[in-house]
Amino acid sequence: GWGDLGAFGEPSKETPNLDQMAAEGMLFLDFYTASPLCSPSRAALLTGRLPVRNGFYTTNGHARNAYTPQDIVGGIPDSELLLPELLKKAGYTNKIIGKWHLGHQPQFHPLRHGFDEWFGSPNCHFGPYDNRERPNIPLYRDWEMLGRYYEDFKIDLKTGESNLTQLYLQEALDFISKQQASQQPFFLYWAIDATHAPVYASKQFLGTSQRGLYGDAVREIDDSVGKILRHLQQLGISENTFVFFTSDNGAALISAPKQGGSNGPFLCGKQTTFEGGMREPAIAWWPGHIPAGQVSHQLGSVMDLFSTSLSLAGLQPPSDRQIDGIDLLPVILQGQLIDRPIFYYRGNELMAVRAGLYKAHYWTWSNSWEEHGKGIDFCPGQSVAGVTTHTQEEHTYLPLLFHLGRDPGEKYPLSFASEEYQQAMEHISGLVQQHKDTLVPGQPQLNVCDQAVMNWSPPGCEKLGKCLKAPESDPKKCSWPH
Amino acid sequence: GWGDLGAFGEPSKETPNLDQMAAEGMLFLDFYTASPLCSPSRAALLTGRLPVRNGFYTTNGHARNAYTPQDIVGGIPDSELLLPELLKKAGYTNKIIGKWHLGHQPQFHPLRHGFDEWFGSPNCHFGPYDNRERPNIPLYRDWEMLGRYYEDFKIDLKTGESNLTQLYLQEALDFISKQQASQQPFFLYWAIDATHAPVYASKQFLGTSQRGLYGDAVREIDDSVGKILRHLQQLGISENTFVFFTSDNGAALISAPKQGGSNGPFLCGKQTTFEGGMREPAIAWWPGHIPAGQVSHQLGSVMDLFSTSLSLAGLQPPSDRQIDGIDLLPVILQGQLIDRPIFYYRGNELMAVRAGLYKAHYWTWSNSWEEHGKGIDFCPGQSVAGVTTHTQEEHTYLPLLFHLGRDPGEKYPLSFASEEYQQAMEHISGLVQQHKDTLVPGQPQLNVCDQAVMNWSPPGCEKLGKCLKAPESDPKKCSWPH
Repeated sequence: GWGDLGAFGEPSKETPNLDQMAAEGMLFLDFYTASPLCSPSRAALLTGRLPVRNGFYTTNGHARNAYTPQDIVGGIPDSELLLPELLKKAGYTNKIIGKWHLGHQPQFHPLRHGFDEWFGSPNCHFGPYDNRERPNIPLYRDWEMLGRYYEDFKIDLKTGESNLTQLYLQEALDFISKQQASQQPFFLYWAIDATHAPVYASKQFLGTSQRGLYGDAVREIDDSVGKILRHLQQLGISENTFVFFTSDNGAALISAPKQGGSNGPFLCGKQTTFEGGMREPAIAWWPGHIPAGQVSHQLGSVMDLFSTSLSLAGLQPPSDRQIDGIDLLPVILQGQLIDRPIFYYRGNELMAVRAGLYKAHYWTWSNSWEEHGKGIDFCPGQSVAGVTTHTQEEHTYLPLLFHLGRDPGEKYPLSFASEEYQQAMEHISGLVQQHKDTLVPGQPQLNVCDQAVMNWSPPGCEKLGKCLKAPESDPKKCSWPH
Repeated sequence: GWGDLGAFGEPSKETPNLDQMAAEGMLFLDFYTASPLCSPSRAALLTGRLPVRNGFYTTNGHARNAYTPQDIVGGIPDSELLLPELLKKAGYTNKIIGKWHLGHQPQFHPLRHGFDEWFGSPNCHFGPYDNRERPNIPLYRDWEMLGRYYEDFKIDLKTGESNLTQLYLQEALDFISKQQASQQPFFLYWAIDATHAPVYASKQFLGTSQRGLYGDAVREIDDSVGKILRHLQQLGISENTFVFFTSDNGAALISAPKQGGSNGPFLCGKQTTFEGGMREPAIAWWPGHIPAGQVSHQLGSVMDLFSTSLSLAGLQPPSDRQIDGIDLLPVILQGQLIDRPIFYYRGNELMAVRAGLYKAHYWTWSNSWEEHGKGIDFCPGQSVAGVTTHTQEEHTYLPLLFHLGRDPGEKYPLSFASEEYQQAMEHISGLVQQHKDTLVPGQPQLNVCDQAVMNWSPPGCEKLGKCLKAPESDPKKCSWPH
C-alpha cells in the first residue's frame, strides 16, 4: 500500500532501503495501478494496456473484480504484445522472478510471451491443498516445475515462515551477475508476493517489525531491494540500469491488521476504485541520470513502465493498437509534467476518472451487503455516506466529484451546484467521451473456470513424480462476488 | 496534524523546509500532546505537567474538553512554575510570539509568568465580534494591546487572507537578531496559529497549495520555519540553538476539507483521545549536535520540552511537584530509548494509556449523538464499532487494547481472551495504578465563565480609544458539550 513505506509516511519507518532509494531517485506520489487487484494489474503492466483492452476482465457480472485463480481457463492472449517480447528486438535478455499470474495453461507460459527465464509460480501462493479437490500450486524454473508450494517450497501458515523471498532475491542477484558478466542488456521483472496473504517472511525477519508479520514481510522486501541496488552498484552497472519500484494494488485491508498493510490517508483498499485501492508507492532510481531527492506529482500508471522501458531501449510502442501507458522519461529526467487522466475500472465498467486533482466517480461500490454481513470488508472502520456504498450506485448523470488535494481521503464530495464542479466536470466529461469513443474491449479472459485446467500435471511433473490426475472438464462461468 | 508534513507522508509534499529540518535533525514518529486541544496542551508544554495537575481542565461534566475562551475566569495559576520563569534563573531572555491561551485576565499575562516580551494574542483569532455582545480579541505588544483582530489586524474570512504569520515571522527574526547582537541566551516560543480555523495565509501564499487554504497556511508556516532556521545559520548561532517543531493537537477534522488538515493513518482528530487527536509531527534540530537524518521511536510529549529545555540550560526541574515531562537529551543526542507511558486525558478522566506499542482505552467517546446529529463530527468518514462511540463508554474493567504497530488506525481491538492481551494489560494496569495513586489534581481553571472578564478594556486601550464597557459580572458554569 501507498502508506507502507517510510518515505510515504508509514509510522514505524521500517523501510530504510526503499527510503534511501527514494532519496537517491524520484518519488512518485500520484502513481496508480490499472486495476484494484493483482492479476489484471500485472497484465496491464506488461502490455501497457488497460485490462479492458488486454482481456483481463470479466463480463459475468457488472463491475466485478476478477483475477487468475487455478481454475481459470483464460490468460494472456497471443495477440497481446508483452514488454519482454518487444525488448527482445533490442537484444535484451528477459527474466521473470516470482508471480506470473497471466494464465497457467501451457499457451500462457511466460517463456511463450517473451521471457527467456522464469523462476516462480503461475499463481499466488494459496494453499495448502489436498491434491485431490485442488492441486498445490507449482513453482517453475523456466519450462518445468521444480516442485509445489507447501510440499517442496514450504510456507508455514502458523508461524508465517517461508524463505521464498530469499530464493527470489538470490535468483535476481545471480541473473544480474550473469548479465553483467556477459555484457548483455537485461530486463528483470522481480515480481515477489510475500505481502500477499498468506503473508510470509524468512526466519531472520520474523518478529523483527513493529508491525507484525506483514511488517516482517515488508522489511524483507525492503532489505532485498537494498541488496539488489547495492549489487548493481558493486558490479558497476547502476548508472546503466533503470530501476522502478511499485506495487500491483493497494493494501488489502480485508487482511488487516495481522496480514494487511496501510494505504496512508486514502480511502479503503484493494478491490476498490477508491484511492486506497489503486494509488501506489512508486520510486524511480537511476544514479547519474535521475537527480537525487526528486518528488513528482505526475499522474503515473504501471502501464507507463511498458512505454518507458521501450523508450529506454530505443524502441517504439506498437502502433497497431491503443497503448495506455506513456513514456515517463521526460518526467523522470527533465522534471516535466504530462497532462493525462487516470481511469479506474472494475471489470469492464469505468468506475472513476482522475484529471489533475479532481476525481469523478461514475459508479461506487465496495462489496455487497450480503458479503459485508459475512465480514468481508474492503473499508474497515471507514464509512462515507453515499461513497463507500454496498450496492452498485450509478452516478453517471451526476458524478461524485472530489478534490484530492483538499480531500485525499474522498470524504467530501463537491457540491453539484458549485462553479468548481461545473468546470471540472466539463473537462472530465470530454476525457471520458473520448476514452469511450475509442475503446475496443478485448475478449474477456476471466469468464470461464474449469477444474480440469488447474495445475494437475505441469511440465516436469513426471521427473518429480508429482503428476496428478485431472478431473473431467466441466467449464462454468466463474463466480466473482465483488 | 501528524499527516500534514511531507516527511510524515502528506501526499502533496509541500513542506520542503520542515522536511529538510527533519533530514538535518531528528524526526519523532511517536510524539504526543498532553491534551486533544490547544489551551490545555499549551499549559502542559510550559509547565511540564498534565492539565489535570496544572488546572487546565474542567469538572463541569465527565470527560469534557475545555479550553480558554474569552469569557473564561481561570488561567494559569501563580503556583505553577513556567519554563520561562525557570530559564530566567540561567540568564535567558524569554519571548512569546503568537497565541498565549493560558488566561487573559491581568494576573495571567505572560509577562507575569516569566516572559520578557510578547507579541501576540491571549486567545485564538475568532471573530469578528460586534464589540457589544463580545469584544474583538486584542493583540498585544508586551504589556499593552496594539489593536484588535479584524479591526487593526485584518483577517479576511472570505479570502482567508491575513498577514499575521508574516508579522510573527518578522518578530521572531528581529528578536533572534537582537539576542545574537547582545550575546544573550534566549528562549523563543513561536506559537503561531494560522492553521487554526478560521485558517489564514498571507497574499503571497494564497492559492499556492494543492490543498486549499489550509495547505496555503501550512506552506507559509513551512516557509517561515525555513527562514528562522536560515537566520540562525546566517547569524552563526545555529550550533548554539536548539529548535523543536511540534503542534498542540491533531488536525481538526471537523474543519475539513477546506480548513482541516491530515492525521495520516490515524483515527479521528482534534478533541479525541484517538491517535489522530494527540499524535503530532515533531522534529528536533541542532546542527553539530544532533546527527542528521535520525528517526526516533521514543514516546515523547510536549511536556518533555519543559524538562529538555531546562536540561539544556543546565537547570533542574522543580522538585516540589510532579513533573510529567522527561529530559529527551539522551534520546536526541545519544539515540537512547526511555521507557515511559503516555496518558490521554479528557478533562480529569484518564481515557487511555500507551505503553510501548500497546494502547489501552479505559473510556471511549468522540461526541454526543445530539451534537453529531447537528453535523459536529470529529471522525468524519470513520466509524469503528465500539471504539468511536457517541456515548461515553466505560471500559475500565476490560480496557480496549490496540497494538499500534500492527494497527496504527485503532480499528482492531485485541481479543480479551488472548495471552497477548493479558500480558500487556498486566503491565499497563500497574502503570495506571501508580499514576492514579500519586495524582494530585490542580484546582480546575476551566469551570467558570463570565462575560464581564472578556477583553473589553485591555491595558493600552485608552491610548487607542478602544476601551469597551464590560457588562455586569454574572459568573456561570461554562458549557463544555464534548
